[in-house]
Amino acid sequence: MSVRIITISRQFGSAGHSIGELVAKKLGIKFYDSELVTKIAEKSGFDASFIRENGEQTSSGSGLFYDMGMYGGASFAPLSLYDQLYITQHNIIRELADKEPCVIVGRCSDYVLEDRDDCLHTFIYADGDFRAKRILEIYGDNGVKIEKRIRDKDNKRSAYYRHYTNREWGDPHNYHLCLNSGFLGIEECADMIISAVKSREGK
Amino acid sequence: MSVRIITISRQFGSAGHSIGELVAKKLGIKFYDSELVTKIAEKSGFDASFIRENGEQTSSGSGLFYDMGMYGGASFAPLSLYDQLYITQHNIIRELADKEPCVIVGRCSDYVLEDRDDCLHTFIYADGDFRAKRILEIYGDNGVKIEKRIRDKDNKRSAYYRHYTNREWGDPHNYHLCLNSGFLGIEECADMIISAVKSREGK
Repeated sequence: MSVRIITISRQFGSAGHSIGELVAKKLGIKFYDSELVTKIAEKSGFDASFIRENGEQTSSGSGLFYDMGMYGGASFAPLSLYDQLYITQHNIIRELADKEPCVIVGRCSDYVLEDRDDCLHTFIYADGDFRAKRILEIYGDNGVKIEKRIRDKDNKRSAYYRHYTNREWGDPHNYHLCLNSGFLGIEECADMIISAVKSREGK
Repeated sequence: MSVRIITISRQFGSAGHSIGELVAKKLGIKFYDSELVTKIAEKSGFDASFIRENGEQTSSGSGLFYDMGMYGGASFAPLSLYDQLYITQHNIIRELADKEPCVIVGRCSDYVLEDRDDCLHTFIYADGDFRAKRILEIYGDNGVKIEKRIRDKDNKRSAYYRHYTNREWGDPHNYHLCLNSGFLGIEECADMIISAVKSREGK
């Protein structure tokens, strides 16, 4: 089946956002990364900063921080705010995929859409030097050692992915294509994703 | 730096051999898979069937089966035949890479050549259905359940790789490109590898 949806899982600093944006631009389709945060905020009432902080990484309180005000007297286990956020994200990603061709970055979108045959799931990664340089260029130095910033973000995304999918983040079997952006470059990664999409046309 | 050498690590039944062969043909460079076995046999005196059986998978006796005839009286730990085979393979792969552009399949070649900047390291994988169909087509039914044949071969290659490299087989970080051949198809995988090679020309 032809590819309508491209999901991009990416390591922090691997240029996954830029690659996804370029793919969407070249294919003339919608791009959802921070745009997804806005949509989730509109739909759920969650604050955008809460979504950005907890929409694809576990927080130290995850699984413990229940909305007891809503479910305090119920006999079933209440949903944490994090679980509610995940469910909202899940529903919005599925609605977007139904609606029109697009590129979706992060938020377990490969797992959320795994039952569909019209998706290309990709994972973008790179070596530490490439990522460190890019993080410092884009986000600046925040006083925390760059190796620690990378490790912490990877660990959080990995734990979040494992928690909600029971799969390993970055395991090739979850994706159709895994690209080392540090070696290949942003433009070539985008072109390879587009090539994969084109190769499925009419199939 | 431009790419001269392409290494292909591949799951059993993922068409990694065919993809590598196609890449070599399209680029007009040498291809080493079973040809490597012949070279190792010539150089080492090991029997070709021993190399095929033990050149990229651990045997139940690995690490225990010493050539005591050679080293029986020595005070240092003797090398097992498997270690001797690994060292011979290692040296031949490095000689080949020095000599001319080529495609090399399996045998930890990504690890053996990891210090070189002129290599593209790839991993080819696919889902179980694709692999099962291909294994039965190419190698036939040997009476063992296909799921068990796949699992056993994966486990052996994985254990061999871990033993000699201290890395995880199939971890994207060991490769520049990981391709799901079941989804992408053999021709597209070959074209993507060639595209990656071309994109590095003159860099």
